[in-house]
Amino acid sequence: MECELRDDVLTAGSDAVEELYDRGFYGRVKDGKLELSLIEGAYLLSRGKIEIFSDKKALNFKMFFEIASERVKDFELGYIVFKDLRERGYYTKMSSIGFRIYPRGGHPGKTPAHVFVYVISERAYLPLQRMILELNKAENARKRLILAIVDEESDITFYELKKIIMSGGQAEPEVRDAGTPAAASLINDRTIVWEPVIADFLHQNYFFGKKIDELRLQLSLVESGYLLSRQWITIEHKNAAEFNEYAEGVEPGYSLKYLIYSNLRDRGFVVKTGFKFGTHFRVYKQFKTDTHSDYLVHTIASDYVFALPELSRAVRIANTVHKRMVFGYPDDATSGETDDETGGVGYVEIGWIRL
Amino acid sequence: MECELRDDVLTAGSDAVEELYDRGFYGRVKDGKLELSLIEGAYLLSRGKIEIFSDKKALNFKMFFEIASERVKDFELGYIVFKDLRERGYYTKMSSIGFRIYPRGGHPGKTPAHVFVYVISERAYLPLQRMILELNKAENARKRLILAIVDEESDITFYELKKIIMSGGQAEPEVRDAGTPAAASLINDRTIVWEPVIADFLHQNYFFGKKIDELRLQLSLVESGYLLSRQWITIEHKNAAEFNEYAEGVEPGYSLKYLIYSNLRDRGFVVKTGFKFGTHFRVYKQFKTDTHSDYLVHTIASDYVFALPELSRAVRIANTVHKRMVFGYPDDATSGETDDETGGVGYVEIGWIRL
Repeated sequence: MECELRDDVLTAGSDAVEELYDRGFYGRVKDGKLELSLIEGAYLLSRGKIEIFSDKKALNFKMFFEIASERVKDFELGYIVFKDLRERGYYTKMSSIGFRIYPRGGHPGKTPAHVFVYVISERAYLPLQRMILELNKAENARKRLILAIVDEESDITFYELKKIIMSGGQAEPEVRDAGTPAAASLINDRTIVWEPVIADFLHQNYFFGKKIDELRLQLSLVESGYLLSRQWITIEHKNAAEFNEYAEGVEPGYSLKYLIYSNLRDRGFVVKTGFKFGTHFRVYKQFKTDTHSDYLVHTIASDYVFALPELSRAVRIANTVHKRMVFGYPDDATSGETDDETGGVGYVEIGWIRL
Repeated sequence: MECELRDDVLTAGSDAVEELYDRGFYGRVKDGKLELSLIEGAYLLSRGKIEIFSDKKALNFKMFFEIASERVKDFELGYIVFKDLRERGYYTKMSSIGFRIYPRGGHPGKTPAHVFVYVISERAYLPLQRMILELNKAENARKRLILAIVDEESDITFYELKKIIMSGGQAEPEVRDAGTPAAASLINDRTIVWEPVIADFLHQNYFFGKKIDELRLQLSLVESGYLLSRQWITIEHKNAAEFNEYAEGVEPGYSLKYLIYSNLRDRGFVVKTGFKFGTHFRVYKQFKTDTHSDYLVHTIASDYVFALPELSRAVRIANTVHKRMVFGYPDDATSGETDDETGGVGYVEIGWIRL
């Protein structure tokens, strides 16, 4: 089968339509002829299915590969992923961010594509806002969105991205039980609740803080800010706003963490530090003794840009400890929920998948 | 037992020497009297072993804790760690970076302390050079060095730090086997070796690169730089120095990665990307089919400053996949090996431990 290279398209005659399009769903048909992308062309060339000519000169794989990688941005990444997807048995069509793929057993004309595949190099950066944009597009088209990250050795890691609505099952704290508000002392970057009854009450019912001994409870900054704003505790010389300002001074980024922490607590989750997992929070749908947390939640600013090795690390940890990795960010325009419901926070789950 | 608070020391009479020092190894004896640190004092006060007076006024735990945290830097961190260590059965003495502890069953006067404990908040930053300084001190004193990181909820994570000499068992590559040097094409951020025989040879014997199909081998930038400098491959228009300069442009930080990569290869390791683990390299002592890598190695500059949540993430991943976490850095003054032996690279292993 002879194809002709012109710019960034390969063209072949009507016999190619029958052999490559009808049987293999390669390329697209235009005016009775077949047009192939250079990625499809390289794949078919490597398998000996086509020959490629440029100005009547035949190109071998090496020549074609070098030309194509000059004409098509990230050609080599696309080729690596396309080849992988086809060899896994997915019919694969080109799209602006990479590919659309069809469910196994399905194909163009029979079934709709079910997944958008976003191809990216491990060296590239991925802004959160770009991710959200692609998630919205996928949502509108009723597709799943999968990130295919090509590492420096051309291995591919697939992550599925999802916007999720977080909803926990912990009962709403009942304010003013057990003699709140209780006096707490601020000691540098933590506070201590001294009264044994309220210390016990906060810790045992809602899993706030950590007992430093039988009598006293130590709270983190976000816990202190939260309990102070709900008037469960008091801190000398500081109302909630003053405390939050102080805390931002001690821990740059506190305000962002506090926003997400409060949002998760308000949504019925129990939220504890995720330090041992290298994330901001580990999050329980409901807390009972001996339960494990369900999510790791990392908080990011709305202009955050993901470095992919970092993303890989976070998702890998969550995966090995059987938790779901979620990124929380300030968001005034989450679809599906009104701002009152979201509290101005959006959540994206990123999970490693086998395709 | 009455103690008197003056500045940042508690003093008690000779009866205290007998009861607290001789039996519990608290404090130190000076002129027949006992001197306690404020951390030791808080611990003994919380257990009802002593009373504390300041200007003849008795202080309760809350009052003493607030005063002590103003007078002693990171008092609350020290208290949390000291309490934990004592309750685990370790006799614990004060030191400049935290504590010295004695083996279980041992105590001051009977056995030497075996561990230096370096106390630090998860919010603090730890420069590599400071870490090396403390490692050298510990080495000279023949102690182990353990980092006790106190997170925002006062949980403690213990890491052991070690300088290690990396030494692998992979046979030295035999240059000019199989028809090297072979021509390779540079395609953006990877290269392709087109000749099937050398592609096979490099991949199967030394685990360089990844086969993109039956015939061709794709190499990463560091692999390409290494093979180019050893004259196993050639790249058109680029000698090794020119290639390294190009690669640094494509991937800022390449030079550092390349230094450590080459050093590990020269030390007899097989080195592959650690992208799936969020580190630079996964490292095999020797490569056979189906072996797992032994180390994760992350490369850092010599002026690198560790953020502790990041460190936690790296060590956690290594731990869950049963590998050892090692940081490699440029080092002109590694003790134990001459510069010729080290190749100017030092390695620190950081491992999670249960105390």
